[in-house]
Amino acid sequence: MERLRKLGIEAIRRVALGSTVLGTGGGGDPYVGRLLAEKAVREHGEVALLDPSEVPADACVFLCGMMGAPAVIVEKLPSGNEAVAAMEALARVLGRRVTHISSLEAGGINSMIPIAAAARTGLPLIDADGMGRAFPELQMLLPTLEGIRATPMSLVDEKGNTLVIDAVSNQAAEGFARVATVQMGASATMAFYPMKGSQVATALVPHSISTAHRIGEALLLARQKRLDPIAEMARQLDGREIFRGKIVDVLRRTTAGFVRGEAVVTGLEQWSGQELSLDFQNEFLVARSAAGVLVSTPDLICVADSEAGEPITTEALRYGQRVSVLAGPCYWRWRTPEGLAVVGPQAFGYQHSYVPLQS
Amino acid sequence: MERLRKLGIEAIRRVALGSTVLGTGGGGDPYVGRLLAEKAVREHGEVALLDPSEVPADACVFLCGMMGAPAVIVEKLPSGNEAVAAMEALARVLGRRVTHISSLEAGGINSMIPIAAAARTGLPLIDADGMGRAFPELQMLLPTLEGIRATPMSLVDEKGNTLVIDAVSNQAAEGFARVATVQMGASATMAFYPMKGSQVATALVPHSISTAHRIGEALLLARQKRLDPIAEMARQLDGREIFRGKIVDVLRRTTAGFVRGEAVVTGLEQWSGQELSLDFQNEFLVARSAAGVLVSTPDLICVADSEAGEPITTEALRYGQRVSVLAGPCYWRWRTPEGLAVVGPQAFGYQHSYVPLQS
Repeated sequence: MERLRKLGIEAIRRVALGSTVLGTGGGGDPYVGRLLAEKAVREHGEVALLDPSEVPADACVFLCGMMGAPAVIVEKLPSGNEAVAAMEALARVLGRRVTHISSLEAGGINSMIPIAAAARTGLPLIDADGMGRAFPELQMLLPTLEGIRATPMSLVDEKGNTLVIDAVSNQAAEGFARVATVQMGASATMAFYPMKGSQVATALVPHSISTAHRIGEALLLARQKRLDPIAEMARQLDGREIFRGKIVDVLRRTTAGFVRGEAVVTGLEQWSGQELSLDFQNEFLVARSAAGVLVSTPDLICVADSEAGEPITTEALRYGQRVSVLAGPCYWRWRTPEGLAVVGPQAFGYQHSYVPLQS
Repeated sequence: MERLRKLGIEAIRRVALGSTVLGTGGGGDPYVGRLLAEKAVREHGEVALLDPSEVPADACVFLCGMMGAPAVIVEKLPSGNEAVAAMEALARVLGRRVTHISSLEAGGINSMIPIAAAARTGLPLIDADGMGRAFPELQMLLPTLEGIRATPMSLVDEKGNTLVIDAVSNQAAEGFARVATVQMGASATMAFYPMKGSQVATALVPHSISTAHRIGEALLLARQKRLDPIAEMARQLDGREIFRGKIVDVLRRTTAGFVRGEAVVTGLEQWSGQELSLDFQNEFLVARSAAGVLVSTPDLICVADSEAGEPITTEALRYGQRVSVLAGPCYWRWRTPEGLAVVGPQAFGYQHSYVPLQS
């Protein structure tokens, strides 16, 4: 695979699409994110993308992105300056200047915010992210496994309110950031997990922006050539289509700064007569059939429009949509006992054991 | 009145008692506060008390105290180090060293925390406070009328979590601090309203610690001499007893970081056959008879044991207590249109107009 070195308008389009696939229903609407990133790149120029191995050991790296309920983020558009303000607030507390930016997760908005922030500040973006997919809570990042603290972290809103949190654990940081986010109107922009360049190699999922770009490009190409986009998506995820059908029920509520709910899909074609239910908390967490759990966090569950292959985020699920449900393996470290302790079924209050998806 | 220059063990006892009278049912349990202040003074020596006029113009003044539901503060004792930690966090953000401490309000715990903090740091305490009584919300301080910002402010808990809030308004600061306080377990210690010495003269209620001391001393003397403590309390408040009776109902719930509720008193002696209801949100806000509102925020409403003259805080109200309800005028600036906008009946969602208590 050719290495991506710069992010311009065309690349942003592909990364947004691919990240939304990796975002497993969360991470916010890709269209909104794209607008922000494209505007920033148009105004400030392309963004330099660095391989994690190219980041100097003494670099000061911040992760940035948004927190809150995706349904609200879509309605309360960030201006694009919030991420810069959040990074400035964090830099002030640390008494250090940020030198490199990274994404916290792969997802529609949260893949785009760091690109916009990099364009606006002229700082390079690292070809990596903290999850290799999207998860709903802020301790659910690879740095947590490395003992890296999420805090000090900053949280800003569009009005100019700024919070700096210094918490005794990443789990405690999630608690404070979540209530502050709700107070900010259910969405906030943050800079967190300040780390050194020397920590990047093990604390981030490498090459996830290139991966998102590759997925987005493959999907666009499949559409262009009128190939089956679902088959292409499955191939790109190194996974498979586990169900196809029509959405017959969506239960969704925005509560405590999350979008939580359940969707029921009734089967079509080879799945005719069967039913699949999908649990979500911003992201899809569990896919269940009558026989039991089919796919579970931390593995990826992606819902896409069966015709166009467009991924559907949890806030965009609607009755009557014809969808394909795809599953793919998560980043290997999430499958270790340490990883499962942070993002496995029990971390979300489920009783079932995690069985790795066979690819 | 002789000026109080030092706060030692005996003075603390008087200030705690007098502040609880001024605390109008809020500000936390005076006994808990006294223990903290006495311990600090025993270990670190007496606290120097400065007249507001003695504070140098370029002094860096912090207000400190606790936030949350008094019922919880009593159960989750602060160690006494939290206020020092909160001031250090605020100083770090400002890049300035605090030189003088002031109380945010008159009230059982919140009059004592600054004394303990002054003893522990060796800094002088200003003979003043931000309210001249206690109010439940953090924008309800005199500095708000002067255009002084509550933030940057720090908020710490006993576990070591620290938040720094920089809000667009003092009202917004209240919102963030409140949800953070709830997340901290419904009580938190804060340092806020950083101001210059030159602002102290107009932004604080002068001599309120001396006033509390005077009230406490008068009550102790009345007890000693077996004089009527209620008459003495009324005299000290420059007010009067408006009702005497037995508490027959207390409705109280800890919600959103406040203790809210209502108490009903059925009359005795000259009030026999009448009923008085008291609304509270940490502090007593409104006293109402069948004829309508008798006393309303921002004027002071104090409930005391009719025999001993011991003030009763809202979390200590119990069925069957024989109480006197006293009223006194608030600090004059709360009676101006600007003051009433911040702490008048409408600021608490009431419809009635404020009629100043006639003394």
